[in-house]
Amino acid sequence: MKLKKLAAVIAALSVTLILASCSFGSSKSSSSSSSYTTTGKAESGTYQGVIKNGKYQVSKSRGVNVGQNDNQFNLKSFETGLLNVSKKVYSTKSYVFEEGQYLTTDTVENWLSRKSSSNASGLNPVKGKTNGTRNPIYIQQIEEQDFMSQSGSSLKLHGITIGIGLNSIDYYQKTTDGPTYKQKISDADLKAYGEKAAQTVLKRLRKNKALKDVPITIALYKQAANDSLVGGTFFEYSSNSGTNLSSWKQMNVKNKVYPKSASTSSSSDDQDDNDTFSNFKSQVQGFFPNLSGVTAQAQYTDGSLSGMHITVTTQFYSQTEITSFTQYITQAANKYLQKGIPIDIKIQSATDLQAIAFRDSGDSKFTTHVFDSY
Amino acid sequence: MKLKKLAAVIAALSVTLILASCSFGSSKSSSSSSSYTTTGKAESGTYQGVIKNGKYQVSKSRGVNVGQNDNQFNLKSFETGLLNVSKKVYSTKSYVFEEGQYLTTDTVENWLSRKSSSNASGLNPVKGKTNGTRNPIYIQQIEEQDFMSQSGSSLKLHGITIGIGLNSIDYYQKTTDGPTYKQKISDADLKAYGEKAAQTVLKRLRKNKALKDVPITIALYKQAANDSLVGGTFFEYSSNSGTNLSSWKQMNVKNKVYPKSASTSSSSDDQDDNDTFSNFKSQVQGFFPNLSGVTAQAQYTDGSLSGMHITVTTQFYSQTEITSFTQYITQAANKYLQKGIPIDIKIQSATDLQAIAFRDSGDSKFTTHVFDSY
Repeated sequence: MKLKKLAAVIAALSVTLILASCSFGSSKSSSSSSSYTTTGKAESGTYQGVIKNGKYQVSKSRGVNVGQNDNQFNLKSFETGLLNVSKKVYSTKSYVFEEGQYLTTDTVENWLSRKSSSNASGLNPVKGKTNGTRNPIYIQQIEEQDFMSQSGSSLKLHGITIGIGLNSIDYYQKTTDGPTYKQKISDADLKAYGEKAAQTVLKRLRKNKALKDVPITIALYKQAANDSLVGGTFFEYSSNSGTNLSSWKQMNVKNKVYPKSASTSSSSDDQDDNDTFSNFKSQVQGFFPNLSGVTAQAQYTDGSLSGMHITVTTQFYSQTEITSFTQYITQAANKYLQKGIPIDIKIQSATDLQAIAFRDSGDSKFTTHVFDSY
Repeated sequence: MKLKKLAAVIAALSVTLILASCSFGSSKSSSSSSSYTTTGKAESGTYQGVIKNGKYQVSKSRGVNVGQNDNQFNLKSFETGLLNVSKKVYSTKSYVFEEGQYLTTDTVENWLSRKSSSNASGLNPVKGKTNGTRNPIYIQQIEEQDFMSQSGSSLKLHGITIGIGLNSIDYYQKTTDGPTYKQKISDADLKAYGEKAAQTVLKRLRKNKALKDVPITIALYKQAANDSLVGGTFFEYSSNSGTNLSSWKQMNVKNKVYPKSASTSSSSDDQDDNDTFSNFKSQVQGFFPNLSGVTAQAQYTDGSLSGMHITVTTQFYSQTEITSFTQYITQAANKYLQKGIPIDIKIQSATDLQAIAFRDSGDSKFTTHVFDSY
């Protein structure tokens, strides 16, 4: 773990120490109570969240994954991607979202560690070598999401989802503060290891009385490299009713960064999208002097562009400049960028977000907001 | 000028050096040209901006005010406040906004300096004492805004607005890098000085052929203290057709920060609003562990609350927590905060904006957006 993460981990631990008193395996169940409410009417395609006694029900393993990710894009895309898997299985219309209440910080930390004499539950391989090769850390992060069915003012657990984040590159140090080495893990290897771990996790979860009969969905995620400008993606999931894994459903999700670097092959199938984005970028950059950067994260689902997060980095501008620029970029986005997909555009200086323009799924127009101050 | 501003000033200068070639007093006029377009259909109550040959028309004195303000709230509220004054005089339906094209960087810098043998045009008093008291710097910033009327694809200058920012406290050093001293300026003094300077500015502007006959509006702004958490406000403006100042129209705008500190008098007329905000704050802070701050800038116009900018500072949260929190805070805002006024709520960590909720003027509902990443 890098030093720069230490502060975040300490902050996370100070939360989780308080919350870790209820350990995995206890029969505590939040299956029904009249003191629950929800975060309120959610937008279409979004879950409501559970509030208990006026407080949000935070995860029992809150903060663990922060310390597990040197690349924050892996953290965010894992959480959001897992929720997207859940939406395929548990309808946002029928169920209410609750942060994971069954896997505690202790449990997740033990599972993420190597198997050893002092940690029989470790899901990562023993320290040492197999066939002359170092055993890498395969499993980098684990997250649980719960879905409740509502009946009047009472809530009952309907099903849960578990995400397992698998390294495509394991970063490790031979000595504390020593240089960092990389061990690559092939797609085939991380998939095989992930599926084996998923079976183990499923069997363990079924031992908890509250989880004995509910649907359990397990999804596998491939972590992006630490220097990637976009996070990893989920590649398969399995919904299960018993203790043996059902078949895996494949997911075809790819993340890309635009504009592509010159070294990237120009013959690939995203060249048109890259050209389109470059036209948008040129149009926008010509508008102002000193516009320093226009980049995008793009996501493809089943081969089609399914969304973009665009960041425009500006140097100093006045409020009137920002307002005019926001009007202009919205015009340019409507003209140049793909229609019918969710897009957001952040307009920011080195220190501040100055304005945003966004078009949600199903919207035909961009909504804009310029940040102002009295 | 503080050292911390140096980088911003250097950046601004590198822009303005390029733009300063057209000096004040020349007869260059952007009065009509067919190569103009605008930034496009603007929201109700917002000006369109001028684009010339695909580029935004930046101000001829771009960046000067950045170096003039140690408190960035004074920079933003001056720009936005001046635009609000302009809207009273030049209808957003009839006119297009253009950044100031007549006052150049050189002109504004000379005007902002003290009058001296080498700077006859300085609007601030000579260095020295009057009646035994140091003469303070009264005028801290000046901004020009232009308003064009559109006729087909051609644009003609309709009128301009000049804002003059007046110090309520002049911060100065006796020696370079020495300690900073404060000299207070009374409301009566800054008003009298500002009105005198406005008359001088009006006469000077009329000497420019392009500005000989157009309406010129001059507005006076009282700068907030450098440690204020909210910027200053405009207090009067005058619209003029000749070379002698017409009567001043008074403005009653006040900025406040909520929650009020304990030391602030509790008997004042904003106590109800402060209590309302405190209720909202309590409701929101109870929701999550580790929510570190909920503060607001509030603006009052003619004695009534006319808008708020709320900032919620969070410690680490996951994407699902942010989504749920955004739903929740929108509910709380609808329930607790004043209806019928524009409000925006920024939800941010120490480093990132995580989500926003905003209700524009005329909207009945909050719009939300959670910032995500692939």
